[in-house]
Formats: sequence, C-alpha cells, structure tokens
Amino acid sequence: MANPTEANKPPRVIVYGVGAMGATVTRLLLDKGARIVGAIGRSPAKVGRDLGDVAGLDRQVGVTVESDARQVLARGADIAVVCVGSYLETMHDHFALCLEHGVNVVTIEEEAVYPWTTAPDLAQSLDALARVNGVTLAASGAQDIFWMNLITTLLGASHHVDKVIGQCCWNVDDYGPEVATHLNIGQPREAFDQYVSEHGWPEFVARQNLEALVSRLNLTVQDIRSDVTPVLANEPVICRALGIEVQIGSLIGTIDRTVVTTQEGPVFELSMEGRVYREGENDTNRWQVQGEPNLDLINESVPYRFTTCSSLVNRIPDVIAAPPGLLSLDQMGTPSYKHGTF
Amino acid sequence: MANPTEANKPPRVIVYGVGAMGATVTRLLLDKGARIVGAIGRSPAKVGRDLGDVAGLDRQVGVTVESDARQVLARGADIAVVCVGSYLETMHDHFALCLEHGVNVVTIEEEAVYPWTTAPDLAQSLDALARVNGVTLAASGAQDIFWMNLITTLLGASHHVDKVIGQCCWNVDDYGPEVATHLNIGQPREAFDQYVSEHGWPEFVARQNLEALVSRLNLTVQDIRSDVTPVLANEPVICRALGIEVQIGSLIGTIDRTVVTTQEGPVFELSMEGRVYREGENDTNRWQVQGEPNLDLINESVPYRFTTCSSLVNRIPDVIAAPPGLLSLDQMGTPSYKHGTF
Repeated sequence: MANPTEANKPPRVIVYGVGAMGATVTRLLLDKGARIVGAIGRSPAKVGRDLGDVAGLDRQVGVTVESDARQVLARGADIAVVCVGSYLETMHDHFALCLEHGVNVVTIEEEAVYPWTTAPDLAQSLDALARVNGVTLAASGAQDIFWMNLITTLLGASHHVDKVIGQCCWNVDDYGPEVATHLNIGQPREAFDQYVSEHGWPEFVARQNLEALVSRLNLTVQDIRSDVTPVLANEPVICRALGIEVQIGSLIGTIDRTVVTTQEGPVFELSMEGRVYREGENDTNRWQVQGEPNLDLINESVPYRFTTCSSLVNRIPDVIAAPPGLLSLDQMGTPSYKHGTF
Repeated sequence: MANPTEANKPPRVIVYGVGAMGATVTRLLLDKGARIVGAIGRSPAKVGRDLGDVAGLDRQVGVTVESDARQVLARGADIAVVCVGSYLETMHDHFALCLEHGVNVVTIEEEAVYPWTTAPDLAQSLDALARVNGVTLAASGAQDIFWMNLITTLLGASHHVDKVIGQCCWNVDDYGPEVATHLNIGQPREAFDQYVSEHGWPEFVARQNLEALVSRLNLTVQDIRSDVTPVLANEPVICRALGIEVQIGSLIGTIDRTVVTTQEGPVFELSMEGRVYREGENDTNRWQVQGEPNLDLINESVPYRFTTCSSLVNRIPDVIAAPPGLLSLDQMGTPSYKHGTF
C-alpha cells in the first residue's frame, strides 16, 4: 500500500471464485470487516448477481459477480482470495493475472502448498512474476494448521524423530459432485483399478504437504512414494454429492498415501482418506511421532471444509505483509488467530 | 559470539542445576553435540564429581560439578540451562549472575513464562540486566509446546473464539519429594484446607501460561481468577516420591485452575491436575475451543517431565539468536525440532 492513509484500513479483497468455498469465504470476510471490492465467477447463473445473493447470505454486499477477471483486477485490490481449482496447471493463468495486476493471492489451491517439485516451471514462473510485481502468492487452508504447523510445533518437544505418521479423514460429500466423480465414488472396484491403470492417479496434497514439512524441518528429501487404495462400501451408503446410493463393494472413497524418506533419516507418512460419511461421522486428524519420546496429537472433530475457509481468511494479513514471491507453506510464518475485525 | 571461528561450532553450555531435570538435560545436550563447559550444583554429594557420574550417565563428561557459580560463569559460555527452582523470587539471583557474565539463559523456571504481573519488579530488573549485557533470558519446557504454541497454532483455524479450555494432568511422582510435599500429598483434606487458609496457595504456572497466551493473541486481560481443588484418594495409592501410602480421603493431588477473561471477549481457562498416578496412567493434554468452529486438540500420551527437558534443549539455538532481554513465552517465536546435532 503506497498510500499511507490506507495503512490502517481493512484490506481490499477480491473474491476470485464464487463456488461453495468462495461463498463461505465471503461470509467470513464480511465478519472480519474486509472491504470486498470485486467478485469473479464464470457460471452464467451467478455472473451479474450480487455477491451476497450468490453466496447465500441474507444481505446484499453491493458487489456484482463479474466474469472478466482482468477488468475486476484492473480496479485494484490488496489481495485476491482464489478458490477455483486444485492443480497449478489449471490455476497458473488465474494466479498470473492477479500477480500482473499487483494483487497478492491467498488460495486453497493445494499444489501451491509446495509446488517446487511437481510443477517446477509453473512455480518458478509465478515466483518470478510475483517478485517483479512486489506481491505474494501463498496457499493456506486446513492443511496449513492440521497437517503442517501443528506437527512442526509438536516436534518442538521431540529429542529425536524416527518416523512421523499422519492419518486424516475428510467427507467427500462436503466438496460437491466434481470431487466425488474425480474419486470414482460409486464405481465398482474393477472400474477403479481399470481407471487407475489407464489414467494413473494424480498425487494428492499429501505429497506437497510432506515436502513442505520436510523442508521446514531443514531435512532433505531422499525418496517420495505415493499410492492410492480404494475404500469400499460394506453396506449401501448414500452419496449426497452425486445423489446416488453406493452399493456394497463399490467405492465410497480413497486413501491417498505418500511416504517421504529423508537423507538424514526421519521418515514421514501421510494418509488422507476421503470418504462418503455415514450419519454422525466427523472429520478427524491423527498424528503419531515415533522417536524419543513417542508423541501423538489428535483432533477428534475437525471441520476441514470450514477450517479451510477460516484458515485462509486468517492468513490474509500475513500474506499481504509477506515478502514478494511464491511462498510455499514452509516459507510462511506460523498461522494465528485474528480476533474481531481486520 | 564475537569470534567468527566460533560461528558454526555447537554452543558452549553450562548446566546450572544438576538435579533430576539437569541430569536428563545433560544427556540430551551430549546427544545434540553441545559443548558442556561447566556444571553448577550445590549438594555436597554432587560437587567435585564428574557431571556424567552425577547425571547417571555411563560415561565421564570431563566436566566437574562446582558450587561456585560465579567462578564457572566467569570462564564464559553461550548459554546456561538453568533447572533449579520454580519461582522468580528464589531464582532472580541465579539468573542475574548468568546475565551479568554475558551468558544467555534458558530455564524451566515457570514464572519466567510470563513474569510481568506476578513479579514485575524482578522481571523488569532482569530484563534491563539482560539488555545491558546483550543476552537473553527465556523460559521453555513442556508448556512452551503443549499449553502455548499448539494452542495458538490451532487457533489459526478459528474464525471466532468464545472460550478456550485446557485440561492437563501430570504425575506428581515424576518430580521428587519437594513437589509432593509442597502439594500436601498424603495429608487429610482438613489439613489441606487449613494449610490453604493459613498460608494461601501460590498461583501455579497455569496463570503465567494463560497470560502469555492472551498476550500472544493480542488480547487484553480483564480479570484473572485462580483456585485450587484437592484431589482425594478413593483407594489407597502409593506415592513413590514420598515413599508413603496415601489413605482413602487424603490428598493424591491438586487441580490448579486459572480463568482469564479478556476485554475483547474470549475467555481462557486452564486446569492443571498434578496427581499421584496409579499403574498405567499417562500424562495428558486436552484443549477445547468453543466458537466458530468448535475445535479440539488432544495429546493422549505426553511425557511432560521428559518433554520439559527436550523442549528446553531444542530452544537453545532460538534463545542464543533472540534479541536481548527477558523474553516471555509470547515474545519467543515458534518452537521447532532440531534434527541431529546443533
């Protein structure tokens, strides 16, 4: 902010992506007193309407959802909160547009957690673009708290670490039909195996997360292995996201697991189970540290979908204040709670 | 370190206090490759002996336990690890001696977690002394991880906090006869009540801890209330620290609770139960966050005694690198694991 009279005012924010996550983010931004100065969407059903309507709030925000991102960004903002897609390949141009316009970016895009090895060219080009324009691109979300900083903090009590094992479980029904379809929910096991053998299976955020963790601990990756295991229904289960009943033996989810070994010795493993829940199940987070001493950390009830939005919004002041560049999660400071309004 | 050839060498450490905690710290320091350059004790049974013997290690360290702290400190060191007593009143002179000799201090002394309101004069005088001598005094221990930084990190996922409630349990038998006697272990309930009404009951580290937490969150204390509740045996329990069997109805521990309200609204409560354990019980740590969303964090098995030592040792590089002064826990950065040797 060049203008000193702006210094103590709440940040000017663009909501970039007005799907389910963008809607929750909008409500949290308004609670925090952020000045929403633009909203970008692509669905014809949303473009042209007030952001408050689109986000399902009971009030108008006075900001119209627009489809021309360039036009919205050209009017200026401190930061864009980008909730659009999950991989850097599809997100690169959206991010680049923000950075070119001198607008910081905080995003739930999972690959940006640690993009240096899975999308090195895109990551380096975005890093350079951010630096040239003096702004920052950083990812946050539930992973920032539950799969990264809680663990690095817990390890502050470790004398010696042999192995760190994380297991988390999230509800596929929280993320709509695209995610459920991507996971092959409802397909028979054979169809899933066939799909994986034909198309491969993209590494999930478990990989980026562990790489960020290892980097923060000043350790050096030796080897990374990822695999996927289908989770099959042992009774018929309703998938709300797809509006189907999954039959016994068909997929209700997958376990995406990554194991990272380091040159220095410690091994890191993270299993992320995305599954259609039965009534009464909660998102969970469990970590075990094998070493001296053995340690554990459990979150019995983690609403990942909501905390992805709340963690993202809490990061806004941090990202605005951060040095320019693409900052992977290991390069960001510790997250924190911001009480009241910005 | 003025001498640049010293820059990459492991820190020169003085073990100040060679009781049970100092013994564990000594072993961890040696594992981490620290250069132990002095050891200070007061018991005639320990003074004059090799630190390795005194610490119960199976090797000599080549450092003799000395009783004249001034003489040891005068030979110079980067940091003193001070494990002697629990309140600033008794610890002030030990700390002052270190600081006067230009030696940084990291300590398990609990009041130094946040000494500004319970011992303001001593805290300010030590802060000034540290600044004049260009060194740092900071407390660490299990509280640094489990009652402070894990919580501030978890709250990074909170949109709005109403109340934060911590409950932890530690084993009185882990800390020797002085602590057990101080807690009135084995006394009938009437004797405990009588003792409290005559002598009062000192606020435990729960208070300092919550004050540090509130300060880190940029909130303002409105009111602080502490109370103590005896925990009574409902069956005979052996107290190893005192070598006695506690009878039914007599004290096996206390619950020290502090509640801090803030001007901004959030309320913080921490109950610390120090109790003689039955076979098979573990130290535990549980936190609940009431707000949007509700969150929780559980450590089912926390060896507090050991993690107090390991957290302290992990903090050594942080304290050496920190700016001069007495830094309360809220003023220190996030703790971290240091793999291998310093």
